[in-house]
Amino acid sequence: MSQGSQHFHLNAFLMGVGHHEAAWRHPRTEAHRVLDVKHFQELGRIAERGKLDSVFFADTLAIGPRLEHNTQAIFEPVTLLSAIAVATEHVGLIATASTSYGDPYSLARKFTSLDHISGGRAGWNIVTSAGADEAANFGVDGIPAHSGRYERAAEFVDVALALWDSWEDDAVVLDPDTGLFADPAKVHTIDHDGPRFQVKGPLNSPRSAQGRPLLVQAGSSESGKEFAARHAEAVFTAQRTLAQGQEFYRDLKAGVVKYGRNAGDLKVLPGIVPFIADTQEEAEALERSFTDLISPAYSLRQLSTMLGVDLTEHSLDAPLPPLPPLNEIQGNKSRYQLVKDLAEDGSLTVRQLIGLLGGGRGHRTFAGTPEQVADELQIWFEQGAADGFNIMPPYLPGGLDDFVDQVVPILQDRGLFRTEYTSTTLRGHYGLGEVGNRFAPGDALGGAIGEASA
Amino acid sequence: MSQGSQHFHLNAFLMGVGHHEAAWRHPRTEAHRVLDVKHFQELGRIAERGKLDSVFFADTLAIGPRLEHNTQAIFEPVTLLSAIAVATEHVGLIATASTSYGDPYSLARKFTSLDHISGGRAGWNIVTSAGADEAANFGVDGIPAHSGRYERAAEFVDVALALWDSWEDDAVVLDPDTGLFADPAKVHTIDHDGPRFQVKGPLNSPRSAQGRPLLVQAGSSESGKEFAARHAEAVFTAQRTLAQGQEFYRDLKAGVVKYGRNAGDLKVLPGIVPFIADTQEEAEALERSFTDLISPAYSLRQLSTMLGVDLTEHSLDAPLPPLPPLNEIQGNKSRYQLVKDLAEDGSLTVRQLIGLLGGGRGHRTFAGTPEQVADELQIWFEQGAADGFNIMPPYLPGGLDDFVDQVVPILQDRGLFRTEYTSTTLRGHYGLGEVGNRFAPGDALGGAIGEASA
Ligand SMILES: Cc1cc2nc3c(=O)[nH]c(=O)nc-3n(C[C@H](O)[C@H](O)[C@H](O)COP(=O)(O)O)c2cc1C
Ligand SMILES: Cc1cc2nc3c(=O)[nH]c(=O)nc-3n(C[C@H](O)[C@H](O)[C@H](O)COP(=O)(O)O)c2cc1C
Repeated sequence: MSQGSQHFHLNAFLMGVGHHEAAWRHPRTEAHRVLDVKHFQELGRIAERGKLDSVFFADTLAIGPRLEHNTQAIFEPVTLLSAIAVATEHVGLIATASTSYGDPYSLARKFTSLDHISGGRAGWNIVTSAGADEAANFGVDGIPAHSGRYERAAEFVDVALALWDSWEDDAVVLDPDTGLFADPAKVHTIDHDGPRFQVKGPLNSPRSAQGRPLLVQAGSSESGKEFAARHAEAVFTAQRTLAQGQEFYRDLKAGVVKYGRNAGDLKVLPGIVPFIADTQEEAEALERSFTDLISPAYSLRQLSTMLGVDLTEHSLDAPLPPLPPLNEIQGNKSRYQLVKDLAEDGSLTVRQLIGLLGGGRGHRTFAGTPEQVADELQIWFEQGAADGFNIMPPYLPGGLDDFVDQVVPILQDRGLFRTEYTSTTLRGHYGLGEVGNRFAPGDALGGAIGEASA
Repeated sequence: MSQGSQHFHLNAFLMGVGHHEAAWRHPRTEAHRVLDVKHFQELGRIAERGKLDSVFFADTLAIGPRLEHNTQAIFEPVTLLSAIAVATEHVGLIATASTSYGDPYSLARKFTSLDHISGGRAGWNIVTSAGADEAANFGVDGIPAHSGRYERAAEFVDVALALWDSWEDDAVVLDPDTGLFADPAKVHTIDHDGPRFQVKGPLNSPRSAQGRPLLVQAGSSESGKEFAARHAEAVFTAQRTLAQGQEFYRDLKAGVVKYGRNAGDLKVLPGIVPFIADTQEEAEALERSFTDLISPAYSLRQLSTMLGVDLTEHSLDAPLPPLPPLNEIQGNKSRYQLVKDLAEDGSLTVRQLIGLLGGGRGHRTFAGTPEQVADELQIWFEQGAADGFNIMPPYLPGGLDDFVDQVVPILQDRGLFRTEYTSTTLRGHYGLGEVGNRFAPGDALGGAIGEASA
């Protein structure tokens, strides 16, 4: 159990009409809603009804292998979350944005806007964009090397943090008598002059309610964990067994401490795809009804990308062919490892593997009653594998409705989850303190996260 | 009068609590609302009550000279318009974004998102970012040369247009039986390989209701007008006299025809800052009450930037010093020329000039009764200087309320303005046809705007 918090945290990871890759073909969904902003506003309100900490949207900068059979990530996440922000009051709003393309000034501005619009509920899932298809949309040939991506990410985040500090909390004075809108002594250039970015600042927007967005990260490779340990306040991760979850948790928290932070300053949130029904049999049947709708052609393409080997002509009823070594994977190293661990002993056919991965692209799926889902979460929380969970409903909105209406009340009864919001900001929901400002005189917290960049 | 349309068009240019630089100090405004998204949602609803074609937000990528005394552009415009989109149903939503920084893939995605969210109401004000302070936030030293900015803009827009075509209208099939989400034969790579951008595509979002956002432009230099003639569907412009307005209008329309387009394919919208009251005397007194609140220090800094000469130590009661020649101006050439024309004969002191510019940074201000404002607009429209107007309320929301409730009904009575929306899209409001798609087989309009880039 994480130190200093009695409750755990819940994020709803929202994607189209559900995480299951065949969700949009299932009678429990209405596929055309993937294009309807009202659908997403409704999801935000359902999450808020469940007092969830946050909702989250993933993003990639290319259509990837999803074109023919998948319906994900149609909206740019910050734009979408802005529309959700004004339809909700409490729930946190986490958007994915890449450090490998784009620039820190525009990114900092966009998230500050979302934080202003939402009154302090913005979060940034920092990703380094592993895809060659993404690179090709930004003038880059092939997959940029893993290490270079993380180096760029580090400088990118340093600049963004400096920009978010560039206006002190009380810089805006709005004094009509003197005609002073902002106090120039409290607005600072950052004069960043690094290998990849030269940014003068200040940001063109005053400091927002949270000071800056919550920093979220989801890389699980060694450099990913290193980056998370240094910067992240919440980490999404795919862990399939309690033992793996515990190991990842210990590892990451040790890293956090190594960087002079408190273990509790970072919340570990493993993902779970819950199929919920009144009996375990019904829940399993529900899961099967989704698995039966999978398009093998699509799944094979996705699996090929994940594993760095062409499976599109491979037999569905044979085991996986030999896989390339980890050091040849420039994409998502940790997801590669996860699949390799699952399938390497040859006991699974490709078809079985596809079924196993269909719910959440490698994330743990769990079919059971509301009590059983609550038990699972409680065990992971109490046995040191999680500070909370990334809930990935297989179908939407129904799968989120069921979690909120059937599982959350059990968690609340057990004292594991809040019954009311006690904070107005996303940082507050996650039990994190206020952020300092490197420029604020006498601010003990100043520079506590990231250093001044110049 | 523009060919083929009986009505003129009205855009509300929204900025903080008003365009007048002292608006936030005036008793008619509440300054803290510059940070309140609800204020901007209310402005969207007021514009919609007046059946206006659109609302528009400017943007610059630096705080510029506005820090101490001005309250503009706190929100990133697309994020803000997304929040306004879901609070309105009809009014168009035009956001400024730069072609000099950022990249076409992310920009195309962001505007497609806004178009999806708003059901086809997005517009893009294409700007080339003239400021040295903006350059310094993106690793560029000094002001990038005027010509290079427009060259980059041309390629940037070409790529964005190709990306917006990359999904055909009917590419999304959502066929649950076959499991086909989108038809791969109707989703195209663009394979752009140009001097500044290499972009493979397709875009990671299906085609939106309008196909692409309305293209708006506001550069008035020769290259600006050339660019507008080729690409723009609406042009914002600062014109102080009817004769100047007529000349600009003729000039631009001739350019449009030169590019093989119809004159009516581009709408010219000069700006006007209306002070409205029951009598002319009251309107003039209202304007004076704003002028009296101007901070000369702030205005001098702004004027210095505009004219490329340091006026911060110059006497307020002397005329302007000699100005540098036009070819030395790398920033906003047309605004420089406008001020030079106004003040060059030495008849205005700097203080008088500042008062004249305070309402709309060079845009025409007009103080009068609702009838007089309506007369002015009618004259400009009927005498060939405008297809509509960019209404720049000096204070908000009051100045927009007054325009909508007092001037619009007169225009409607005279048959000059719509009484109901007759279209659901921004393009429709501006009387523009549907856009083609270069990739659609047998689409006569295909490639009509911009060419395929590779
Ligand atoms: C729950 C979760 C969500 C993720 N969302 C995104 C995303 O939206 N965009 C993206 O490019 N990567 C996403 N990732 C991938 C990670 O950011 C990271 O790139 C990946 O885990 C590979 O990192 P690694 O190379 O450090 O292992 C996500 C990962 C997880 C576990
Ligand atoms: C009504 C209006 C609005 C404008 N809005 C912006 C803006 O938001 N951002 C910007 O950088 N420039 C803006 N401009 C400036 C123009 O885009 C252009 O850069 C300027 O007129 C100089 O262009 P030129 O060099 O072709 O004269 C605006 C101009 C006008 C007339």
